[in-house]
Amino acid sequence: MPAGLIRIPMDDPADVPRDLDDVLPPGRAPGDVRAVVVKSEGNGCVNDFSRALAARAWHERVTSAVTVVSGGTEGVLSPHATLLFEDVPRSDARGDLVLGVGKTSRIAWSELGSESHARDVGDAVRAIQKDLEVEPDDVALVLVKCPLLTQDRIESVKAGGKKPRTEDPYESMAASRAASALGVAHALGELDDRQLRDGIAGDRDVWSTVASASAGGELDTCNIVMLARKPGSGGALRATNVVMGDALDATGALEAISAIRGAGGTVRQIFAKADPDPTGAIRGHRHTMLTDSDLHSTRHARAAVGGLLAGLSADPMIYVSGGAENQGPPGGGPVVVVWEPVP
Amino acid sequence: MPAGLIRIPMDDPADVPRDLDDVLPPGRAPGDVRAVVVKSEGNGCVNDFSRALAARAWHERVTSAVTVVSGGTEGVLSPHATLLFEDVPRSDARGDLVLGVGKTSRIAWSELGSESHARDVGDAVRAIQKDLEVEPDDVALVLVKCPLLTQDRIESVKAGGKKPRTEDPYESMAASRAASALGVAHALGELDDRQLRDGIAGDRDVWSTVASASAGGELDTCNIVMLARKPGSGGALRATNVVMGDALDATGALEAISAIRGAGGTVRQIFAKADPDPTGAIRGHRHTMLTDSDLHSTRHARAAVGGLLAGLSADPMIYVSGGAENQGPPGGGPVVVVWEPVP
Amino acid sequence: MPAGLIRIPMDDPADVPRDLDDVLPPGRAPGDVRAVVVKSEGNGCVNDFSRALAARAWHERVTSAVTVVSGGTEGVLSPHATLLFEDVPRSDARGDLVLGVGKTSRIAWSELGSESHARDVGDAVRAIQKDLEVEPDDVALVLVKCPLLTQDRIESVKAGGKKPRTEDPYESMAASRAASALGVAHALGELDDRQLRDGIAGDRDVWSTVASASAGGELDTCNIVMLARKPGSGGALRATNVVMGDALDATGALEAISAIRGAGGTVRQIFAKADPDPTGAIRGHRHTMLTDSDLHSTRHARAAVGGLLAGLSADPMIYVSGGAENQGPPGGGPVVVVWEPVP
Amino acid sequence: MPAGLIRIPMDDPADVPRDLDDVLPPGRAPGDVRAVVVKSEGNGCVNDFSRALAARAWHERVTSAVTVVSGGTEGVLSPHATLLFEDVPRSDARGDLVLGVGKTSRIAWSELGSESHARDVGDAVRAIQKDLEVEPDDVALVLVKCPLLTQDRIESVKAGGKKPRTEDPYESMAASRAASALGVAHALGELDDRQLRDGIAGDRDVWSTVASASAGGELDTCNIVMLARKPGSGGALRATNVVMGDALDATGALEAISAIRGAGGTVRQIFAKADPDPTGAIRGHRHTMLTDSDLHSTRHARAAVGGLLAGLSADPMIYVSGGAENQGPPGGGPVVVVWEPVP
Repeated sequence: MPAGLIRIPMDDPADVPRDLDDVLPPGRAPGDVRAVVVKSEGNGCVNDFSRALAARAWHERVTSAVTVVSGGTEGVLSPHATLLFEDVPRSDARGDLVLGVGKTSRIAWSELGSESHARDVGDAVRAIQKDLEVEPDDVALVLVKCPLLTQDRIESVKAGGKKPRTEDPYESMAASRAASALGVAHALGELDDRQLRDGIAGDRDVWSTVASASAGGELDTCNIVMLARKPGSGGALRATNVVMGDALDATGALEAISAIRGAGGTVRQIFAKADPDPTGAIRGHRHTMLTDSDLHSTRHARAAVGGLLAGLSADPMIYVSGGAENQGPPGGGPVVVVWEPVP
Repeated sequence: MPAGLIRIPMDDPADVPRDLDDVLPPGRAPGDVRAVVVKSEGNGCVNDFSRALAARAWHERVTSAVTVVSGGTEGVLSPHATLLFEDVPRSDARGDLVLGVGKTSRIAWSELGSESHARDVGDAVRAIQKDLEVEPDDVALVLVKCPLLTQDRIESVKAGGKKPRTEDPYESMAASRAASALGVAHALGELDDRQLRDGIAGDRDVWSTVASASAGGELDTCNIVMLARKPGSGGALRATNVVMGDALDATGALEAISAIRGAGGTVRQIFAKADPDPTGAIRGHRHTMLTDSDLHSTRHARAAVGGLLAGLSADPMIYVSGGAENQGPPGGGPVVVVWEPVP
Repeated sequence: MPAGLIRIPMDDPADVPRDLDDVLPPGRAPGDVRAVVVKSEGNGCVNDFSRALAARAWHERVTSAVTVVSGGTEGVLSPHATLLFEDVPRSDARGDLVLGVGKTSRIAWSELGSESHARDVGDAVRAIQKDLEVEPDDVALVLVKCPLLTQDRIESVKAGGKKPRTEDPYESMAASRAASALGVAHALGELDDRQLRDGIAGDRDVWSTVASASAGGELDTCNIVMLARKPGSGGALRATNVVMGDALDATGALEAISAIRGAGGTVRQIFAKADPDPTGAIRGHRHTMLTDSDLHSTRHARAAVGGLLAGLSADPMIYVSGGAENQGPPGGGPVVVVWEPVP
Repeated sequence: MPAGLIRIPMDDPADVPRDLDDVLPPGRAPGDVRAVVVKSEGNGCVNDFSRALAARAWHERVTSAVTVVSGGTEGVLSPHATLLFEDVPRSDARGDLVLGVGKTSRIAWSELGSESHARDVGDAVRAIQKDLEVEPDDVALVLVKCPLLTQDRIESVKAGGKKPRTEDPYESMAASRAASALGVAHALGELDDRQLRDGIAGDRDVWSTVASASAGGELDTCNIVMLARKPGSGGALRATNVVMGDALDATGALEAISAIRGAGGTVRQIFAKADPDPTGAIRGHRHTMLTDSDLHSTRHARAAVGGLLAGLSADPMIYVSGGAENQGPPGGGPVVVVWEPVP
């Protein structure tokens, strides 16, 4: 099942093309779409209802697909959907990416952000990986859409005599992203058991190079989308992985994009995480993302890193998600460039 | 009077070094500082009181200097002050920048944003230019700090039987920046009389390549800072001018910075304007800066362009100001890189 | 068709009861619901997608009803839906309210906020009124849900060679509310032709005592809901009309509520408009709603007036909508208390 | 030292009257002012620089006074300063309020929010109380202005090998208010040792009826202002204490104001705390203050409770501060009405 990818601009969070057959490549039908990955234009935080609206609109049209809707198109970022579909294998294909999707079962609210949450994600990741018949090292990207704790959910945990991971809904997003990313990293052998537990305990220095997790209130499972390299699978797409060391680190992405384009290839999509450096400074220079009470830090980070990567690629319709806990080093994050070699 | 430049990080808007002699180069004293150009950490909009606080704190310490305090350090941008001082001329100097400052008289609130406002700025610009004995084409940068209309000021105009330029304080910032930039452009011969009037009437296609205007409620004049090229003036600094065509246009800035560094030079500061494209799209891709009711468009633009330029220069302590009406093409803006050649 | 009313709390903007029969009174079915009036928990401004999500969720369940979804539950206000249904007439009924609904045809984007927009609303109001067989003076409340200009719509007007009412999406909400309210007032004889035109031209001193308009991007018509007094119609509900003179004016509402409760009656719902005084002051005291660039003035006003009316009625599940242009005097707004006499 | 009180409207956070003698009562000079209590127009959260600006401006004019600057004039609230001064005792005075002020020493950042912080406040409260020669039960109001943890301060605690109370600057405001209020309550005998510790551990059910604490980044001590009843002290002012049970509880304040005015008295000022109910609901109705990622909960609460109390008193120039941890019951807060009997 080679991976195919198209991007569709969205005029509003409910804007889904009337006829998907018109936008899919010849020979491909809506039933071939396995994942819809959306950047919608809400605040990307707790009360971002653009996510639920987009998920609902896409689910009605592509009933078979898993959705990953990430809110927040700050700055130059442009709202859109990335459709990942099962492509027709071709014998002369020059790409190698395959596509898999999956879900965890429902995450108990009392377990959100815990090691159990991480292990549930890890189990689902391993299942997809086995199904694709790829090795951990072959995995190029694991997108996770994970839940958050609303006030109601926090109260329900307390009513059940348990202690929620946090009583702040916005902070629960970070805890959920962290557990999801740690689960991916553990499943793929990037981290061992001790490191997994350290990460759950708050250690930001243990991280995945391929996980990209985004939290939302519109679901109670973790939705998972994987891209992996499998030579001979007959697809058109390739992936280049880069890790930004911090939010100023343009070098790797710039070199990757230049190399792809220099060889006649075409960048099809960029998947990146943006992180407000948790120390409050970047290379010794103070930033204000953590002390701005009018604007949450993830919005700041998406705008800045989105501005950088969109400028470097001359393309604002890219996937940049905010809050990179245990996804790349603190203040940095993974960048996955999906591209198509010259045919 | 060759231009000297140092940058000072600020821990909060009132954070001024106890002893400026410690931070100025040997031989230079606070009395040599002619301009203090601050990026402070407020919202950069109408109710940004970080500007007034910073202006007050710096005025107390550097009584002789003109201040230009621009609010907004969204994303990776780092709060700081750029001190421009009269440097000691050296016969072996490899730079050419000279520095001049000035002020208009008080802008009548009924005239804010008008042709009269523009002409007042233009007069002050010409006076500085003559004083520096440079030609219009020699001017590398004109920073203007201009007033805005608070609700009180709007009411006072109406009470006087006149019609304010706008009844929306946030929009008055754009009108003030536009008139100021047009005044600079007209004074420097970038625009003729008709173009000046077109610009005042709202035409965004007439613009300056060197003006950078920022509005604030903390003053009632326009404060002006000019950098110009004057070979033989004995200074250490040079300037490279670039115009971003839009917020994705990384090419010019990247080339300028690469060229400077490639030749062994050192970038001392970058002065840039960031603009939310007024058409609602960049290169055909919709952006959401103009329809985000939680976050004003200038904050979006500063974060994104700040993220790009800080990444390109690997330096977040740069001056990026939001709202580039008639400063570069719509959606784009001037970028001035101040640098020092290898000695 | 006597008016019936129930309120349903909503846990999120898509939270619609699984079985409406469970919440409607005995003998009433979903098909009897004529209007769903929602306070959803978005920002109530341009990019409030909670409105579209709620409208979509309710439309799927109550296909026959007109929706009026007003965003913004700032402060103590509690998200909920008010269902207005056609009640079974009873011969011993002590109320008099009847219910009617309607829609205009599509509002051309170039006409949004214009006299033509107002007259379209007026025609629809008159049609409902005639259908209900009530006189203008009998009308107790006219809720209007009207469109706004998104950036795309603004660009489409300009592309068509016309000038949109405003180029600021947030301001288009005010223009749309104003035209809608003026249309109601004109249709009901509260204003004559000249006053209608003055209002469209920006005169805030011509206003309706019964109109309550709310703008949103999720529709292109104006949806209209009317409550009117018709003795003998066999309903259970009555209405008391009050006009707040400004946002501090608690007297009328307090007296109305006290009188109803003092007589053994039960308040069923309060419909109110909240206005940020356009002069920037209330009774001579400066307010900051118009100069807060972090928080739009309608959000401020809803929070404050919502806090007042919820406190006076000891009930936070009331309908308070922000921005009362031509709905009550500037800074004030109509308040309609719907109640049920002791049986 | 009988307490005198005047209120001064402020046009911006630095707006201090040129000549205070003009606004003080005859016979009173700036040197008699002991406390300046300001409601300034910032966001009242971490990056509210209006507080520092106002404190700086007032300190320059009234060098002897303690300042308590509380940010946030959401909704109808009007920016102003309340000057508390030592009044001339009169033998025929009908009031009983006396005024005292004090400060703690510097609060160590590692101790902010701790029992030690609370006890420091308690010591200062007891010292003022003894100095005034009043009993704990005589105390009508204790205003505390306490510090918060900025990102820098958090990092400095961690660098010192200690664990800060929280790593979230906004949450540090709540922790600081809680410790300050608990210190007041303990000093005045409202709470015993065990209750103090429970409160520090997060128990919201132990609380003061007279404390009103507000946090800010502009100081490193706790500033304290006390009003107490001391019959025969010769002052003009009295105080009525009410505790709101929740944010809808209008009854007590309405009765107090009605009683004062009914007896010919004049309300001089209202000091109130506003709390976003920590359970996420008020009287069983869900509110959205805790899940709104665009607007912090204290801003919501100030707007709503400010709207209610300003409406009840027909006066928007009142002191309403947000976040009432351990100040009144959860979701409620103390209200102190300072008034003057008919002479």
